[in-house]
Amino acid sequence: MPDSLFELHERLAADTHLVGDLVLSRLLLINDATYPWLLLVPRRPGASEILDLSPIEQAQLMTEIAQVSEALKAETACDKLNIAALGNVVPQLHVHVIARSRRDPAWPRPVWGHAAAVPYTDKAAGEVLSRLRRRLWLTDDKR
Amino acid sequence: MPDSLFELHERLAADTHLVGDLVLSRLLLINDATYPWLLLVPRRPGASEILDLSPIEQAQLMTEIAQVSEALKAETACDKLNIAALGNVVPQLHVHVIARSRRDPAWPRPVWGHAAAVPYTDKAAGEVLSRLRRRLWLTDDKR
Repeated sequence: MPDSLFELHERLAADTHLVGDLVLSRLLLINDATYPWLLLVPRRPGASEILDLSPIEQAQLMTEIAQVSEALKAETACDKLNIAALGNVVPQLHVHVIARSRRDPAWPRPVWGHAAAVPYTDKAAGEVLSRLRRRLWLTDDKR
Repeated sequence: MPDSLFELHERLAADTHLVGDLVLSRLLLINDATYPWLLLVPRRPGASEILDLSPIEQAQLMTEIAQVSEALKAETACDKLNIAALGNVVPQLHVHVIARSRRDPAWPRPVWGHAAAVPYTDKAAGEVLSRLRRRLWLTDDKR
């Protein structure tokens, strides 16, 4: 399926800032300053499950999960990474990569449904995005 | 790290039935009849994050996630798979593969912390384990 037919689900677009495009996935920052929280969205139209990707794409997704995990861990010195593909509400395949701290408000429970998001200020979002792009060799002109 | 040094975390052992050993991971059935819920535990001593696995092991883990997802989907005709590596409570790396139904009690929320587990009867557990082993070419003598 050509990448050009990919459209980001409107709910994911509304809740995130764009970090950039990796080889397979669009990388997004969830607009919640409570947790350093990224999403990987494989640019494959119609994919809802990891099973909807080819084995090659599945392997690439794992590579990107590891790349993004490494970057997030280096940026945050987190206590634990939480990685998940749920999609019960938004059907477009997306993988959460979340840096958890023993001092975050949901610890040790999962973050979903814990509390309303606290949006980043423009300045804070810009700083986080710049640091992540630098770590992942991404530029700002990918959308 | 040799596989022979691997020991399943006592909490994971207490909460599950053994399905069998895949190439990398021990496959377990969570003892909660509310959801068809499997765990993949890579037999690598000390691994807590996916990042603690080598790239080859990470790729194998993705292969096993797909194998197990396919088997669980075929057995349950579920509406959605939920796949997650959290580990905030039990540090040993384990990946949840859960078959979700629109009619299950936690839908559309994640399953963790929703309600107390409802253990399988011996008969029901035996049947589920047999069906999964048959789908995954596993035998009963792996422990």
